[in-house]
Amino acid sequence: MIRISPMTLAYILQMTGVAVFACSGALSAGRKSLDVVGVIVISFSTAVGGGTLRDLLLQRNIFWLADPVYLWVCIGAGALTWLYASFWPLPQRTLLFADACGLGLFAISGAQIAEQFGHSVVISCIMGVITGVAGGVLRDVLCGEIPLIFRKSELYASAAMLGTIVYFSLKALSISTAIASLVGIGVITLLRCAALIFGWHLPVFHFREQSGKSPGGY
Amino acid sequence: MIRISPMTLAYILQMTGVAVFACSGALSAGRKSLDVVGVIVISFSTAVGGGTLRDLLLQRNIFWLADPVYLWVCIGAGALTWLYASFWPLPQRTLLFADACGLGLFAISGAQIAEQFGHSVVISCIMGVITGVAGGVLRDVLCGEIPLIFRKSELYASAAMLGTIVYFSLKALSISTAIASLVGIGVITLLRCAALIFGWHLPVFHFREQSGKSPGGY
Amino acid sequence: MIRISPMTLAYILQMTGVAVFACSGALSAGRKSLDVVGVIVISFSTAVGGGTLRDLLLQRNIFWLADPVYLWVCIGAGALTWLYASFWPLPQRTLLFADACGLGLFAISGAQIAEQFGHSVVISCIMGVITGVAGGVLRDVLCGEIPLIFRKSELYASAAMLGTIVYFSLKALSISTAIASLVGIGVITLLRCAALIFGWHLPVFHFREQSGKSPGGY
Repeated sequence: MIRISPMTLAYILQMTGVAVFACSGALSAGRKSLDVVGVIVISFSTAVGGGTLRDLLLQRNIFWLADPVYLWVCIGAGALTWLYASFWPLPQRTLLFADACGLGLFAISGAQIAEQFGHSVVISCIMGVITGVAGGVLRDVLCGEIPLIFRKSELYASAAMLGTIVYFSLKALSISTAIASLVGIGVITLLRCAALIFGWHLPVFHFREQSGKSPGGY
Repeated sequence: MIRISPMTLAYILQMTGVAVFACSGALSAGRKSLDVVGVIVISFSTAVGGGTLRDLLLQRNIFWLADPVYLWVCIGAGALTWLYASFWPLPQRTLLFADACGLGLFAISGAQIAEQFGHSVVISCIMGVITGVAGGVLRDVLCGEIPLIFRKSELYASAAMLGTIVYFSLKALSISTAIASLVGIGVITLLRCAALIFGWHLPVFHFREQSGKSPGGY
Repeated sequence: MIRISPMTLAYILQMTGVAVFACSGALSAGRKSLDVVGVIVISFSTAVGGGTLRDLLLQRNIFWLADPVYLWVCIGAGALTWLYASFWPLPQRTLLFADACGLGLFAISGAQIAEQFGHSVVISCIMGVITGVAGGVLRDVLCGEIPLIFRKSELYASAAMLGTIVYFSLKALSISTAIASLVGIGVITLLRCAALIFGWHLPVFHFREQSGKSPGGY
């Protein structure tokens, strides 16, 4: 059996997440009729946004400054998406499913990196959620769309939170990091996809205000 | 007479500010029909956004990573707001008044922390304003609304700026930090509330452009 | 012949960029009928936004905390713009041309600073583009507009990228930093202005989706 060190595993997960989020960024940019450099800017922001915020908060070296391979993977994934999408029509909701995979990969790798930095399980879960959702939020804010995370109420941050909890629970049961990671990523991605397909959501919060006209909704 | 150290005072002010801004975030999320995790994400971003930006700029340890009590206060305040607002209707403009209190608490605690880090009075005032307004700006950008600070022109950043100037003026007159802080917070919160009620505003800047059609307003 | 050290040159370029972007921020705020403090907040965010992001990513001291002269230049440039624009009508597209100058100045000074920090040419080019575009993106997001960089498809990030490549190419040919910088800034500013006047743009990416109704465009 091949043994993968936790560092290597986090590296592979993060690299895959960068590629997947770069594709989702390129697809999102494709709706806006941007030129090639605009597509690269959006792909890049989406792909490295979550991890960059995590590294700033943890006061680590920024991952893509320390290792330029990320840049080439990001540019390559964005360019391939462009080429592919220019020749063949894409199945519907491709963007949403790419986003679901990226969410899983980044949430678990973010939680792992916070854990390796000696943070508690609670902080590591939160770092996982932040790493998972921040890239997509940045993509949507830059494209002038309401962030996916806040549109309708299909499971999103909730899926990321549940997956990181599953990951730490499995690790507490002495299951290997590699298996716990794969299960955690699977839980997040499948839960998000199922929520999209079946419209699953948690109880929605909608508060009541006393009646009366309030200018501008306030 | 009980003596409070400046460190303890800044801690209490910041903790209260986190709770108040978490409520305002939960109220803002309540307009968007988010699920429970979405509400927590918005509450959390609002509550820690300003202080996180301040800590990144000052290259301090991020306050809520160093002390997890903030997280529990934030989650507790968000959950209580949800529970309360699910059963009882809220008075109008509750969000705006919570925002006004949070603005005062964060502006003064931000100014104090910058001062304890050895920055000049001018930089400390600016850090106070940044800490006070950034959480609310983040809440509004994430919720896809035009930030409160830029809507109409009631005093907002101006109130925060004035309050920090009052705080440093009182300290220069050898008045104790505790009293100067309370006066500063009071000035900001009352000024902002009064501006909301009476529509007070500073002179508005509106520049003239030469006539002629310009595509997209540019 | 007067010799300028690379440090001094980067300082002068950055200071000029801060002044120019502060003007563009004040002009943008002028469309929103903000009060004087709101105008200062937008000017300041625009002027220091790009450089602050660069410094956070490079883990340098934040440039305007280390040297308060930037603050005064920023406040002065914003106030002069306000005064001028209150008395005389401005030529059309003033904002766009100010933005083009700021883009050139910040892109080259950002690339120089990353280079002085020992980063590779590729990373320095990317840092240049980030420094150049981030202030303007922040200005537009805060003002609730779709960022200039993503509107239509005139050269923007592409111009910044090309200019930094020209800068490093000239330096590789042993041309002095001062001349390489001026040429790089000229290329970016003129290219952006020409693109605005003549509508130049790169090939646009627009991907095809399989037909069928998809809720909310997804």
